Parts: sequence; structure tokens; C-alpha cells
Amino acid sequence: MKKQQQEQLILKPEAQIHIIFGATGDLMQRKLISAYYRMMKEHMMPKNFALIGFSRRPLTDKEYKKLLHDALQQYSRNMKIDERVWQRLSSRIYYHPGNFNEAAGFRTLRRFLAKLEKRHHTKGNKVFYFATLSKNFNKIIKQLLANKVITRKGNEKDYFERLIFEKPFGHDLHSARLINQKVEAAFDEHDIFRIDHYLAKETVQNLMVLRFANALFEPLWNHKYIDNVQIIADEVLGVGSRGGYYDNAGALEDMFQNHLMQLLMFTAMEPPADLKPTSIANEKIKVLQSIKDMSTQQARLNSVKAQYTKGFANGKMRKGYTEVNGVDPDSITETFIAARLEISNWRWAGVPFYLRSGKRLAKKTTKIIVYFKEAPRILFYEKQVGIHPNVLEIRLQPDEGISLHFNIKKPGKEMHVVDANMDFCHECLFSPNTAEAYQVLIHDAMVGDKTLFTTWREIEGSWRITDQISHAWRKVKRLPKYRAGTHGPKLAEELMERDGRHWYI
Amino acid sequence: MKKQQQEQLILKPEAQIHIIFGATGDLMQRKLISAYYRMMKEHMMPKNFALIGFSRRPLTDKEYKKLLHDALQQYSRNMKIDERVWQRLSSRIYYHPGNFNEAAGFRTLRRFLAKLEKRHHTKGNKVFYFATLSKNFNKIIKQLLANKVITRKGNEKDYFERLIFEKPFGHDLHSARLINQKVEAAFDEHDIFRIDHYLAKETVQNLMVLRFANALFEPLWNHKYIDNVQIIADEVLGVGSRGGYYDNAGALEDMFQNHLMQLLMFTAMEPPADLKPTSIANEKIKVLQSIKDMSTQQARLNSVKAQYTKGFANGKMRKGYTEVNGVDPDSITETFIAARLEISNWRWAGVPFYLRSGKRLAKKTTKIIVYFKEAPRILFYEKQVGIHPNVLEIRLQPDEGISLHFNIKKPGKEMHVVDANMDFCHECLFSPNTAEAYQVLIHDAMVGDKTLFTTWREIEGSWRITDQISHAWRKVKRLPKYRAGTHGPKLAEELMERDGRHWYI
Repeated sequence: MKKQQQEQLILKPEAQIHIIFGATGDLMQRKLISAYYRMMKEHMMPKNFALIGFSRRPLTDKEYKKLLHDALQQYSRNMKIDERVWQRLSSRIYYHPGNFNEAAGFRTLRRFLAKLEKRHHTKGNKVFYFATLSKNFNKIIKQLLANKVITRKGNEKDYFERLIFEKPFGHDLHSARLINQKVEAAFDEHDIFRIDHYLAKETVQNLMVLRFANALFEPLWNHKYIDNVQIIADEVLGVGSRGGYYDNAGALEDMFQNHLMQLLMFTAMEPPADLKPTSIANEKIKVLQSIKDMSTQQARLNSVKAQYTKGFANGKMRKGYTEVNGVDPDSITETFIAARLEISNWRWAGVPFYLRSGKRLAKKTTKIIVYFKEAPRILFYEKQVGIHPNVLEIRLQPDEGISLHFNIKKPGKEMHVVDANMDFCHECLFSPNTAEAYQVLIHDAMVGDKTLFTTWREIEGSWRITDQISHAWRKVKRLPKYRAGTHGPKLAEELMERDGRHWYI
Repeated sequence: MKKQQQEQLILKPEAQIHIIFGATGDLMQRKLISAYYRMMKEHMMPKNFALIGFSRRPLTDKEYKKLLHDALQQYSRNMKIDERVWQRLSSRIYYHPGNFNEAAGFRTLRRFLAKLEKRHHTKGNKVFYFATLSKNFNKIIKQLLANKVITRKGNEKDYFERLIFEKPFGHDLHSARLINQKVEAAFDEHDIFRIDHYLAKETVQNLMVLRFANALFEPLWNHKYIDNVQIIADEVLGVGSRGGYYDNAGALEDMFQNHLMQLLMFTAMEPPADLKPTSIANEKIKVLQSIKDMSTQQARLNSVKAQYTKGFANGKMRKGYTEVNGVDPDSITETFIAARLEISNWRWAGVPFYLRSGKRLAKKTTKIIVYFKEAPRILFYEKQVGIHPNVLEIRLQPDEGISLHFNIKKPGKEMHVVDANMDFCHECLFSPNTAEAYQVLIHDAMVGDKTLFTTWREIEGSWRITDQISHAWRKVKRLPKYRAGTHGPKLAEELMERDGRHWYI
């Protein structure tokens, strides 16, 4: 297969200033600064642009820029920084210290913005990036409005003010609703960008193409032919330097409510009427609506939370979760979540969806497993024990691609059947240098394209299910454990074994 | 994928003598001697074994052995002959001159056999291999019986006498019936081995496994999802030294009636009740029975015969067919055949099967193309012209394997769809050193296993269709032509274009 040229139609954004809340945080350091750098490098940035980092730490501009440069270096190991590009970006970066609980920082922010707008000719256009914990969202909005940094909706303005919210949006349905009410009351929906960066991943976008541009899959994509679906996001890394954040979130909030549920929606949705974002969102929401409610008892039975203990993982001995810096030594935050969901509609009746994600597991893998039913136990099945049901494996990482596992004849006189697979490797056909998810998303927000952002109703529907699980575990005083570097807790195996199935990991 | 060990359960044949009619012919030189050599090398031969070459040419044993050794060298270019193995084989090879029209050679053959049986302790077991034109089959049988080389059925005997018939069995339905009547009158069915060596090819045997050991394919394998099936056996070689044989046969007899029709049967058959050879044959025969009869006019419209003219092929300028040694300069024998067949049953109603085979074409390829219907012209299809229907490609040679062609999203902002394929490479999983078809078949005949041989009813049913085509071309005085090295005659394209389709070559 020959590599194909990736011609992209890049819209150049208008002049604008970005204000990042949580400007020294993990997300900024690991993802956002490299997204801005790459946009600058790839000429996706407007000439008139500035970026203000807003955070509590007292830093000079120079210190802040060094922090970002170091972060860029650290988290882009395979990339050599082009210092001329960095200079172009760096000359537009500022730091503004402030506390989300105090008006002072926001009053000065307003004046600072006015000054920078003149200097950089940004015409009043602003993007506020909430790269912070969701518990801060409402505080920040309140300060922005009270200190007139931002214009409440209904007031005329000839510039745009957009808000980007990092996931998770809230920490349960109730808190998410509180945020959303405040946000929707003060801002127009088209200015609100709720991030789930999985939506910008090529493989996720490809899911719809795979399903609806191929006559082959759709006839098989239902309870008649599919035995179960597994959505797996296993990590080998621990919580790293994010102990403080993570201990307040856990796998359910950090992965399940957003990423895993998005993959589930794309896998299970009906074909939309057309390709408009609202039509697609409507079908995704219908999936959430069809997920069977679980009583506390059912939710407990159909989910597993667990926490890793020390063990040999990713090449060396690793601390247990509760020994990590920033984590409460008595923490009962889960680093592993698995759940079994059922979708009560015509397509999926009787087909369980198993979702799992965890840290410090044996293997890094994010994938969707479509596990087909067995062929009737006749003919080749009669004699053979080793025949496997067909499996379609859609890999997001690593080795992005698709494999179809099937049975073939083993060469030789006897009719022995063995499993083989047809494989499609994404990087073999396309260059691996596709845009990073955050680069795509920030650019989209800059040009006002909401296609790859989640809607409130998806978030709401997803919290409904997620809350049922967290509620079921509320009274648990001590989490099940799994040793770092293993395939997760025994209970997750048992969840499958109860159904006579196993994880495809 | 790791290479898997091929453990085979090889039955050691009993003591026996083989008598090859057509012992200096093309088949013996190109295929059979190497099959015997490999069996010897791989310890599949009984200790008590002898081989008699029977042919018209006056040769000494020594000359004959040299001819075979040279042939082995010439047609096994990648193989170094192990001379010790050759010695073991060679010490068991004899030559016996004779004419199929004269009793003398058969009378002496009987005495010669008696002598060799003593020398090699072969206990009276004999295999007569008819590696000659089918017009000689009846002559030889008559001589064998008249000169008591062989025992007519019904007579008690404590040894076996088997007959192997090379394809094509007859040159039309009538001649095939005449042969079969003679053969069945004189011999027990379990002693009659009718060869179509495609049945011994791994990929052909794999067709049933692919279809019936995978839950994925069977639901799609019908007129609801399949648009058309193409069975293609294109060769780059010309007729070579086989001009004399070929000019009496042509592509219809040499490829279509046997190999192409066998592939069609395996592709189209219903699942058999079990894996017994008779159960499988029954389903294959049902396919032939369901093929729509064609009037002369219909057969003419739905088939194309053609002959190659000189042209640049396979690296150099090549003679036209009628200039080849042994070919009648006014020959109207076809070197290319294409036909469109319809199978009138519930599964295949409305799905055309296109078969083609030709010599001196642009590319060597033998494959089965399952061409799926288009997805509904909605969603991604609305905007895009370049979306291709899904295609399952089952390759027999070269690059034995399976590919599934499907549509995926092209990375980038726009929803562009491009085609990709999942590929399974047979040689990547299994060693390429699988047994040659003739090695498998001769060994099977030696141990009395008829599984991979064709039945009379398959041959009969296949001639019924083939005769309709040859009949339609009977009055044609001049064949359409195609230049050597091209993709065949324009008429073959037109056969497809009439249906709005094209060859997948």
C-alpha cells in the first residue's frame, strides 16, 4: 500500500486571544502547548494572536515561557523543537497570576486583555479555555461575568467570546447540571465547546465510515450476529504527576463517563439521517437513552472498581496507587473500572457491552472488540475444539488499524482449522503524522466549528449511567486491589466468566 | 504471525507398481516426476514400489531415466535435486515401449509386470495412470482388458488395481459418457480416480472452511448482499511445448470445464450435511443442476472465445498462437474463454457468475472475487464518487491469501472516504512448502482415499454447461483475437460492460 498524500483544507482562524485557566497544569504542559506549537508550525495560526496563561502561581512571563518550553521538550520526545517556530509562538505568550476565588486577578485580567488587544490587534475575540477541574468551572464563570471580562449573552457585540470546557464536565449528573445551567444562562450555545478529545481521533471518526460506507458490516451489526462488544482502554502508566487531580476523579470520571461512553455510542448508534452534527448527536443520545437502568444492586453486580497495588510494571517495580505523591494514603478512588451494560433496543437486545479501563495494567491498548456469534456447531465445529468465533478488532492505539480474526484450514491432509487474521494497518496506508486530537480541537474552536465537540445531552445521558455505577459503590469502604502490571482485578474476569465469556486483551 | 508447524498424518501406502500411460508427455515431465521425487524424499513411498513408463518412443531404461532427471531439473528451478533420493527413486523406474493401438505392447507389459512384481515384492497391486489425452482412454482400457493386464470387476482378487484419469475427462458430454460407461462397466467405482488437481490446492480446500467455519461470511453469502462473483484464472504463459495437445483442447476444455467450474461449485454450494465426500459432492452437483440452461443464442451472447496474436508479453515479443509449434496455422482453438452463468436457486437468483481464463495475458492471477452490493447511496455516498463496493478477494496464486477491500476515512478535517484493505497472507502464517497438488493426489490414490477426486456426476454436470458454450461457437469460422500481453479481448470487457460491471483484474 502506498502512502497517500493528506491534503487538508485548513481554514485560517480570525484574530483572537486565548486565556487558559489552569495554565501551569498537567493538560497545558502535556497536550495544549504542543497543540499550539504545532498549529504555529503548520501555519494554522492567525498573525494576530496572543495567549494568556492564568494560574495561581506567581510567575513572570519569562518563567512561564520556560516552563512551557521545558514541557514541550519533555512530552514531545520524538520531536526536535524548531526554535524559530517557538519564538513566533513565545512572543505571543503572557502570564497573568490569579486566584479563581478572588476578584482581583480577574479585574486586572480585564485591563490586561484590553492592553493586549491593542498590541496584537485581536479585535476583542476571545477564547477562554477551562483546562482545570470542573469544580472550578462555575467559580471562574462567575468571576468572568462579575468583573466584566466577558459579555453576558443578549448583549450586542461585534466580536466572539468562546468557552472551551475540558472533560470531565462535572463529577456527576447533579454537578454537571449546575455548571450547564450557569453556562447556558450566560452564553449562547454556539459559543460553548465541550471537549472529549476522543471525538477528534481519526479512528473514532472512522467508526462511522467503517459502519456506514461499507455494505459488508451493517447487515451483521446487530444482535443476530454479534455476541458481545468490548470497549477496552488499558494503560500501562500510573497516575504519574497527576495524583492530586486523579484522586479526586478516578477511572469512572476520567475515562468511563466520557471516552468509553463515546466509543460505545459510535459503535452502537443507528445510521443517522444525514451527516450533520445534530443528526449524529441525536443518534448517539438515543443509544444512551436505550441503556438499561440498573438498580443499585444490579449496578454493583455489573461493575468492578479496583485500585492497583505495587508491582512490576512497564519495566520496573512501581509504587502502589496510594503511595503516589498527591494521593490520599486511605484513598478509595478507583484506578480500574469495568462495567457490563445492556442496550434495550431492537438492534442490541441481548448483546452485552463490556467496558473497561485501568491504569498500570499489563498492556497499553485502546480498542473496540466486536465479537461475533459462533457458527452453528456443525461441520468443522463437530470435530474441533479450537475454532474461535470471528472477531473484528478496531484498534485506536497502539498500531491503529483493523483486524478481522477468522478461521482457515491448516495446510495438510487433515481438516484442521486454525485462526488467522486479515489486518489493516492505518499507518501503513497513511502517514503517522496525522494531527493530534487537541490540535484539531483547538483549531476547530478557533474557527467556530463544533462538529467534534460533545453536546450537553450526551454528557447528561452519560452521567445518568455513570452515576448508577458510582452510587452502587458509594458505601464501599475498601476497594478490590490488583497488582501493578497485571491484567486487572480478578473480579473483572469474574464479571465475564459469569456470562461464559472472557476479555479480549 | 508466527509460522506454524505443519504436522501431517501421513499414511504409508502399501506395496504397488505404477504404470504411466503418456510416460514421456508434458504432464509426466512437468508435474508427476517431481511429485514422485518429493514423495520419495519425504518418506511417503512404500519400500516395495516400481514405476513403469509406457509410451510409444523407443527408449532404454537409462534414456528414460535421463529424460525424467532432466525434466525434474528443468521444472523445479528453485530446488536442488538430492541425488541420493533420486537414486532411490530411479532404481525403481522402468521404461516399456508400446502403442495404444496395438496389442503387442500390452502383452509384453503383462509379462514385464509379472517379472517386476517378483523383483519388487509389490503383491499384484497396480495403479494405472492415464496421463494422456482422453481420446486414448478407451483404447487403453480395451487393451488392458483384452490382454489381461488387468482384472475385470466381479472377479475375485486379493490385490488392488486402480485407475487414475487425468483431466479433461472426455472432450464433451458425449465422449465423456462413452469413456465412463466403459470404465464403470469394467471397474469398481472405488478403484476409479478422476483428477482435477485444483481440488488438492490448499486454497480450494480452504474455501469450505472459510465459508462454513466462520459465522461472518455465511449470512452475507447470497443474492441479498452479493452483486456478482468472478472466477478468474489468467496466465501469462503461452501454450509452450504443449501446442499439439492444446490445439486439440482449448481453454474451454483445458480450464473451464474442470478448474473454473470446480471453483464455482465450491463458491456457490450450500453447506453440506456433513463433511463426507459424497455429501460434499451432492451439494456441488446441485449447483451444476441449478445453472440456467442457455439456448445457442444465449450461450453465444454470454460467452467469449478468443485467440492471442503476437505481442509483447512476459518480458519479450511473443509469437501468436497459430505460429506456435504443433498448432494448426488455421486453428480456431480458443486460448481465452469468458462466460457469464446464472445459478437459479434461492441463494443466487440474480447474481451473475463471471468465469474467465486465458493464456498470454498481462498478469498471472487465479482468484475468486466476491463483489458485494453497494451500500445505499446515502450518507458518505452522497458526496463522494470514489467509494467502492466491498470486495472479498480469495487468491489461489500468486500471493495465496485473502483480502477484504473496504472504505475508510482519509485522515484529515474533511470526511473523505478512500478504499483500504485487510489482508491475510497465507505464506506469512504457514510455510510455503506445502505439498504440491499432484503429490497429494498421487499419494491419496496410493492409499485409496478418493476425497480430493471428482465424481462422475460433477464431470457430467459440468460438460452439460460447457457443451452449451462450445455448441454456440461451433459455426464460428474465425475467432476474435487479443494481443499477447493484454488483458484479453475487447469482447470480454463488453460482456461485463453490458451489465454495468467490470473485471476485477
